[in-house]
Amino acid sequence: MEKKRVFKESNVMNILTYSDFPIKKDINKDDIIIDILHQIFYKYNIYNIGIPKDFPSILYFLLTKKNKYKYSIIKSPIKKEREIKNKEEIKYIKQSVNAAELAMKTTIEKLKKLSIKDNILYDKKNRAVTGEDIRNYIDQKLIKKSCYSFSTIVSCGIDTENPHGTTNVVLKSNEPIIIDIFPRSIKTLYYGDMTRTVVRGNASEKLKDIYNTVKEAQEEGIKMIKPNITDIHNKVCDIIERNGYHTTRNCNENIGFNHSTGHGVGLDIHETPNISDNNYKLKEGNVITIEPGLYYPKIGGVRIEDTIYVTKKGYKNLNKYEKIFEI
Amino acid sequence: MEKKRVFKESNVMNILTYSDFPIKKDINKDDIIIDILHQIFYKYNIYNIGIPKDFPSILYFLLTKKNKYKYSIIKSPIKKEREIKNKEEIKYIKQSVNAAELAMKTTIEKLKKLSIKDNILYDKKNRAVTGEDIRNYIDQKLIKKSCYSFSTIVSCGIDTENPHGTTNVVLKSNEPIIIDIFPRSIKTLYYGDMTRTVVRGNASEKLKDIYNTVKEAQEEGIKMIKPNITDIHNKVCDIIERNGYHTTRNCNENIGFNHSTGHGVGLDIHETPNISDNNYKLKEGNVITIEPGLYYPKIGGVRIEDTIYVTKKGYKNLNKYEKIFEI
Repeated sequence: MEKKRVFKESNVMNILTYSDFPIKKDINKDDIIIDILHQIFYKYNIYNIGIPKDFPSILYFLLTKKNKYKYSIIKSPIKKEREIKNKEEIKYIKQSVNAAELAMKTTIEKLKKLSIKDNILYDKKNRAVTGEDIRNYIDQKLIKKSCYSFSTIVSCGIDTENPHGTTNVVLKSNEPIIIDIFPRSIKTLYYGDMTRTVVRGNASEKLKDIYNTVKEAQEEGIKMIKPNITDIHNKVCDIIERNGYHTTRNCNENIGFNHSTGHGVGLDIHETPNISDNNYKLKEGNVITIEPGLYYPKIGGVRIEDTIYVTKKGYKNLNKYEKIFEI
Repeated sequence: MEKKRVFKESNVMNILTYSDFPIKKDINKDDIIIDILHQIFYKYNIYNIGIPKDFPSILYFLLTKKNKYKYSIIKSPIKKEREIKNKEEIKYIKQSVNAAELAMKTTIEKLKKLSIKDNILYDKKNRAVTGEDIRNYIDQKLIKKSCYSFSTIVSCGIDTENPHGTTNVVLKSNEPIIIDIFPRSIKTLYYGDMTRTVVRGNASEKLKDIYNTVKEAQEEGIKMIKPNITDIHNKVCDIIERNGYHTTRNCNENIGFNHSTGHGVGLDIHETPNISDNNYKLKEGNVITIEPGLYYPKIGGVRIEDTIYVTKKGYKNLNKYEKIFEI
């Protein structure tokens, strides 16, 4: 059905559709695909077949019923290719990061203007402002830049104890507010990603120390970025532990720094490489986040995140927006 | 990491996480999952295991290496469950349909107000209006209703020959304009879906006849909807063929009506049941589209689509917006 459109929109040279193959009547859809694949294997003399590990199990099951061919499970070659971004892709990611930065800036300026009464934030019309209000505000800003986001995180107080917690109720002063914005461009489909944590009013000494630890770990992690580096996550953990906080290395109670340091960003919000305890060597063209966080029951959470591009000799941080805790 | 959040947000009673199981050190991520699954099978005395056909092939491959258990490939039980929508889900889909209707209405009113010069549509500021302009306009309307859409279709003229064609260049008078809007709610994640085809100015007699045929087929198809019905697609094809046009039943040249009559709508834009030449018996609670179309080279395309809910004795069309060709 879409053959003409594919020829028009794709830059792939050799496009085959179902109608290019004789198809047996009265067999089901899955068997039709297998039948066509066998015709392709025959036509192009293919005997060694790699099935990407995330392909549907039905394909693996049906294909391997015929022993004529040699099958193996492989990692998706496309995912691997997508780890390295070209200039155009980096431009697209930068555009989405810019949309996130603009939304972050106007949101934090908006938070600064709210008035405080009995530890609750109020707008000019004297309405208590909820996390949902702020999330909607961010999403409206993003769509004006042709980006959408359907799970922007705005969490406050005890909800910040969970890295992906959200707050729908009123926002409070003197408590951490985590704002994690990861817009996707409607036009390019590329994502950007950033997080800031702020307190409207005054943070406790404990929270300030947590913030400073996360900020130090994040900035030191970023400074390490260059091709062939492998141990950013461990360095981030070192800094956090040295400051007296917990990581998954020194504690299995799910408190403190309980997630990975970052992830690739591109057509998916989470792509490889994963910046955690693994042996991946950074490569020029990777676009990754560095986003340590600390989360404690009854105290709350702090996370700071930038999206960074790995250059030939170092890195370029696609984010510029300030990191200030008390606003 | 997310255990606390899952307990808070989920209504599932029995939630297990990786940390509930002893995990062998120094094995890779895929093997950890398999190891945990084997611990679960052992704990709950499970011997017969159905692997949904769309699960990753790596899981099938690794699981079936142990012959202790009996494995089979099954259709996803969740997808099957999702075919029947409850009242809350229908409310959510209706909300997304409403957002689409509002965007469609304001868009068509906007098109009506454009001026025509040399067959090209111009706005008040005397700028030629492109398909991309209209798509952006629609997406802005949708976000105001907390919905997003990243592939709204606005196609005109020869671009309408492809069911999913898009037009980025200027819109023309006297040519069909297909507008296919399928917003997803940011809040509920449910979709709505609708299509209208209009001509600004005058349509040729041929195009008018095509439009009337599609409209008749669409409305007669909708009228058939009730539980246990199976042959809507064939009825739609009958009407199209009776009017002298092509379907995939009477022609394999990929012209005329070359796609299915409709599809389920819910958390995905395309869900089962597929309204095509199959034996699926409609059930109360299905939410489906009915969207015949006709597409001819050098003439163009027409498609009309509504989202419909199958009731106990018939149906309820979630769309209300008028179907008028020449505007």
